[in-house]
Amino acid sequence: MTAADPIYQTDFVKEMIRQLRALDSYGTYDGQPGEKLIEPLLLTPERKAQIPLVGDPDEETVARVKAFYNAIATLIEKECGLMAVPIINLTHEGFGRALIIVGKLVALDKTLRDVHRFGFESLSKMKTEADKLLAVALERIGAYPEVAGL
Amino acid sequence: MTAADPIYQTDFVKEMIRQLRALDSYGTYDGQPGEKLIEPLLLTPERKAQIPLVGDPDEETVARVKAFYNAIATLIEKECGLMAVPIINLTHEGFGRALIIVGKLVALDKTLRDVHRFGFESLSKMKTEADKLLAVALERIGAYPEVAGL
Repeated sequence: MTAADPIYQTDFVKEMIRQLRALDSYGTYDGQPGEKLIEPLLLTPERKAQIPLVGDPDEETVARVKAFYNAIATLIEKECGLMAVPIINLTHEGFGRALIIVGKLVALDKTLRDVHRFGFESLSKMKTEADKLLAVALERIGAYPEVAGL
Repeated sequence: MTAADPIYQTDFVKEMIRQLRALDSYGTYDGQPGEKLIEPLLLTPERKAQIPLVGDPDEETVARVKAFYNAIATLIEKECGLMAVPIINLTHEGFGRALIIVGKLVALDKTLRDVHRFGFESLSKMKTEADKLLAVALERIGAYPEVAGL
């Protein structure tokens, strides 16, 4: 897959790369193309097999989890025009949850586990997962606009 | 103020002491009466003046913040019969927010700052603040029972 792949022109992937750059606090990826920032999130079965089953997530991995939910929150904002606040709550061991709050509505609520193994088989699978979460969140906002507008 | 004070018989204070004991992971207060566990939370203006304006909260202080919101969450559960999940999200510098989620409703949402100075002038003020937060949460749950029941 290269940057010529049309998936790089989708709102989600563009936003995901923007978020990854924003959270790259040490400038490790300065001047690098978007694919390079996405790359550590793509875990083929072979790469995943190399990560121990149990482990503490490092700062970069946690930043990638945040980038993923920040990107979804930004897309929610674009769609519904309401502020969406992502909240990632993790123990040191990499367990916890991701929330996206819109007004007083929990638009998205996801249990996180084994965050040190956070990743997706392919960029297309990452986008599919994001689209699914986005659709659920937007549907819930549509169902409870009053709570989302509080 | 002593344990003979009727405030120690209120639901909130009893629950607060229970939560403080549960979060006393090193057993520092084993065998001590409830007042002793509450005591570090009571910051008279003189005691507050001794705490630096800027500082990182230590583990015990964060545990006390959690105890406070856990106690409120427990009282919410008792009142409405629905599960209430407290979420405390803090930076190392002691800024962040406290949420209590009931179903998909944010029943309580409070900005936290200067958590290293977390405390109340008196036990009565602590209880008043808890009662106020509880009332707001229960009112919101009453207004949006469908979202709280999701």
